[in-house]
Amino acid sequence: MRWWGWGEASRAPGLPPHALGFLRDTVGVSEHPRPPVALGEVRIPASALSASAAGALREILGGAAVCQDHRQRVLHAGGKGYPDLLRVRMGEPEGAPDAVLYPTSHEQIREVLALCARHSVAAIPFGGGTSVVGGVAPLRGEHAAAVAVDLGALRSVLGLDRESRTVRVQAGMRAPELEGHLARQGLTLGHFPQSFEYVSLGGCAATRSAGQASTGYGRFEEMVRGLRVATPQGDIELAAVPATAAGPELRRLLVGSEGVLGVISELTLRVRPAPEERSYEGVFFESFPAGLAALRGLAQAGVAPTVARLSDERETRMSLALAGTGGIKGRLGRLYLKGRGYSEGTLAILGFEGTADEVARRRARAIELARAHGGLPVGRSVGEAWVASRFAGPYLRDELMTHGVMVETLETATLWSNLERLYREVTRAITEALDNQGTPGLVMCHVSHLYETGASLYFTFLARQREQAELDQWQTVKRAAGDAIMGAGGTITHHHAVGRDHSAWMVEEIGEQGMAALRALKAQLDPAGIMNPGKLLSPG
Amino acid sequence: MRWWGWGEASRAPGLPPHALGFLRDTVGVSEHPRPPVALGEVRIPASALSASAAGALREILGGAAVCQDHRQRVLHAGGKGYPDLLRVRMGEPEGAPDAVLYPTSHEQIREVLALCARHSVAAIPFGGGTSVVGGVAPLRGEHAAAVAVDLGALRSVLGLDRESRTVRVQAGMRAPELEGHLARQGLTLGHFPQSFEYVSLGGCAATRSAGQASTGYGRFEEMVRGLRVATPQGDIELAAVPATAAGPELRRLLVGSEGVLGVISELTLRVRPAPEERSYEGVFFESFPAGLAALRGLAQAGVAPTVARLSDERETRMSLALAGTGGIKGRLGRLYLKGRGYSEGTLAILGFEGTADEVARRRARAIELARAHGGLPVGRSVGEAWVASRFAGPYLRDELMTHGVMVETLETATLWSNLERLYREVTRAITEALDNQGTPGLVMCHVSHLYETGASLYFTFLARQREQAELDQWQTVKRAAGDAIMGAGGTITHHHAVGRDHSAWMVEEIGEQGMAALRALKAQLDPAGIMNPGKLLSPG
Repeated sequence: MRWWGWGEASRAPGLPPHALGFLRDTVGVSEHPRPPVALGEVRIPASALSASAAGALREILGGAAVCQDHRQRVLHAGGKGYPDLLRVRMGEPEGAPDAVLYPTSHEQIREVLALCARHSVAAIPFGGGTSVVGGVAPLRGEHAAAVAVDLGALRSVLGLDRESRTVRVQAGMRAPELEGHLARQGLTLGHFPQSFEYVSLGGCAATRSAGQASTGYGRFEEMVRGLRVATPQGDIELAAVPATAAGPELRRLLVGSEGVLGVISELTLRVRPAPEERSYEGVFFESFPAGLAALRGLAQAGVAPTVARLSDERETRMSLALAGTGGIKGRLGRLYLKGRGYSEGTLAILGFEGTADEVARRRARAIELARAHGGLPVGRSVGEAWVASRFAGPYLRDELMTHGVMVETLETATLWSNLERLYREVTRAITEALDNQGTPGLVMCHVSHLYETGASLYFTFLARQREQAELDQWQTVKRAAGDAIMGAGGTITHHHAVGRDHSAWMVEEIGEQGMAALRALKAQLDPAGIMNPGKLLSPG
Repeated sequence: MRWWGWGEASRAPGLPPHALGFLRDTVGVSEHPRPPVALGEVRIPASALSASAAGALREILGGAAVCQDHRQRVLHAGGKGYPDLLRVRMGEPEGAPDAVLYPTSHEQIREVLALCARHSVAAIPFGGGTSVVGGVAPLRGEHAAAVAVDLGALRSVLGLDRESRTVRVQAGMRAPELEGHLARQGLTLGHFPQSFEYVSLGGCAATRSAGQASTGYGRFEEMVRGLRVATPQGDIELAAVPATAAGPELRRLLVGSEGVLGVISELTLRVRPAPEERSYEGVFFESFPAGLAALRGLAQAGVAPTVARLSDERETRMSLALAGTGGIKGRLGRLYLKGRGYSEGTLAILGFEGTADEVARRRARAIELARAHGGLPVGRSVGEAWVASRFAGPYLRDELMTHGVMVETLETATLWSNLERLYREVTRAITEALDNQGTPGLVMCHVSHLYETGASLYFTFLARQREQAELDQWQTVKRAAGDAIMGAGGTITHHHAVGRDHSAWMVEEIGEQGMAALRALKAQLDPAGIMNPGKLLSPG
């Protein structure tokens, strides 16, 4: 992975000229490209790890697994959120871990955590490093130093139970590696977050990830049947069971713990047969509310698609302009839709996966229901174009930043009855926060996950960067958006997790007593407070 | 509810003569009926509640809501587990709450708990009082006295959100009351534990209940979208959201907390349309493993019935003998089945609920799949007979106890690949524990809930009571069964909860660190340790 952005150096997609033109005409771009600095110019402090701690770590892990070189430290200096990339591209990350550790077993992790507790060294669990909420920021709290505990050497499949449809894996395994392994067995996990190409399974568990297909395959927390966690006080191992009533659900407490309680080292995950058929298509609706009503109908009739996304009018317009959704391209597409009465329409992507019978049945019901809400199916090429570009967002972001464009996403969820209000309030807050800074933006939204009782909203906004004040610009919008989310009855995060960036809203989310309860839990499992300081439960 | 058993005094089902004959021929019955003592003969200690605490409680609640009379105290002297009933029928409950409180608001509960903490009075949340695991046993721990906090006055619907399909209720509401309310709106919750007629919704949440139809409607914890809990330290209120990634799932920590952290006072629950059609039928399989394979196929093909139960050979035989499943009756039925090659078969009940289309489709797929595993559909009368008697178990138990027969149930769950082993090991343990005591029994089992990754096993066993050593007899079997469950990789409870009776196995279930974590949580929310002592986290 690039140290300053997304993807491998070999893949440089570039921004097509018409897209750049569109941006110039709307939010504006920088006159001069703003590429990242060279790796050697990235300024990080000298390692603060004491010689005794470093020596003790080498004794546990072996010398090669304790890295203190510039490149490794920069690669672990943050996640892949917009502020992370802003900082590192300018050569000014907010610090870096004093060492990067590569344990090769659960036992090594346990020993490392115990040692860190003794030496007052913060430990930051590091999987794919794809957090967009500051979840792997190299904060040390009150400690002398901080190390990243990279699970990159722990990526094996430990066992497949075909009869029970479960797979046991090491937490450092990357999602595509597991999908590859399962595909050879005719199986799939079905977890496809936008970060799919790099995300680790342990990271998905730690952050309660939801993938693009989670309407069909379930959220990651619903896939976790058993897990093993190393905490500074010792192990918690919860056997794989289909269900239990044995007290509070500890599985759901460790899933979502974001590294502040310990390191998830192993997971037992539910798997499913690989789909016999996949069918993705586009459906146009006359308005966002009309589309919402159709999606609600699908979710509540028990025929929700595997993937369901509904863009608002602005996101639809932008998609057509950038032709990112293919099929209905540019001006021609707009003319076609206008001719059929959809001058300001909204585009839904409906994807169905499963057996051929199942896909045919659900699709027929869905299209029928969509038509009843004024939906106009516009074909599979639109759906396939979405599939082809489903992981493209982070690559595009790198390009936009090079052109001086701020691009950020944030997301929330609420009950169906509150969804339009939440949509309006957050859109307004982001729009005003950008306007007030003199950088009017494009603020877009789509519904990304359906539930019987509600849905999630995923906002994307672009604006010209305020040069020299990029972080301040971001912080201002982020604060306005978060306040609007909480004020309008949303949750501060539906699938990005809390990390550092959302920790300020946690008290509003779960209340003072809820915070006290989680802090008590942390104090028990991590009495020295070394686990991922400044995230989730404490402001970063 | 009868103080010594189940149901209202007006309903006295009686044991049909042929059933009594069957029991006499198998496990043996007592020569003399053993009815419960009279209410006045039940011995409970004088109330230990101090005058000052009682006075302060009356100030909060009003005098009429602080009950200290014999009948109320006896009615709250335990739940409805076999040992509870054994004790109370003999007039020797293990104690009684020193007062029974009837708060009428969340705020009153909060004040009561704060007061109890100040006065060192244990508080035992009491809903329907239907616990079968000692969950409402009047234990006081180190405290001066104990009060039952009965939520019987808190049983209103606070709001129905049809668009989001959620209902907000007070936790003392009984399941049938809510179903009645919802039925008038064309809706259902779909939660039907065997205790349905008396269970409270707060109790279902506190115990992570699963109902007979939870394969279709989901476990209770999956229905809880938001909740309000009063703890001795203050409130935790979690708004209703369809899903969130905001840290560890506190909802799932409070659901299942069994009254040891606080009192659940309000719940927001997911509801569904009332089914247009219900279809229940019987299907015979040649063997328990053949039936298991069919059920696994259904669950993993995504066409699990709403209700799926598969009795083992012994339970099937007993059901036919008692004609409790109707349709296939007694000797005639056995001859019919034998003629078709099912001399030692197992009976499954498959129930489908939903729209007419949906029921027809799922049923057709299920029957096809069942036939592929050698299943023989034996008609709807068998299914309807099961529906008619679905809540009869506890009434029958009272009768059996009167005839000197011990009857108890216990349950567990595991992955499909481990299900037959768990079944064998637990059956053997119960059988041997009964044999060793000179009271050979009938040990039966059915699969009661299906999941993609596994299923639950529900054991019922009958034996002649060891007179004068009834509790010891029960304890011996219970210990053997619990040890066998843990030894064979099951969970100590799939839907009965932990209470007092399973607390000894919790450390095996979640480990030392898991226990320490939950205890730290309790210490935070309930520093005086007044909440439901002796349950879940501490041996009773």
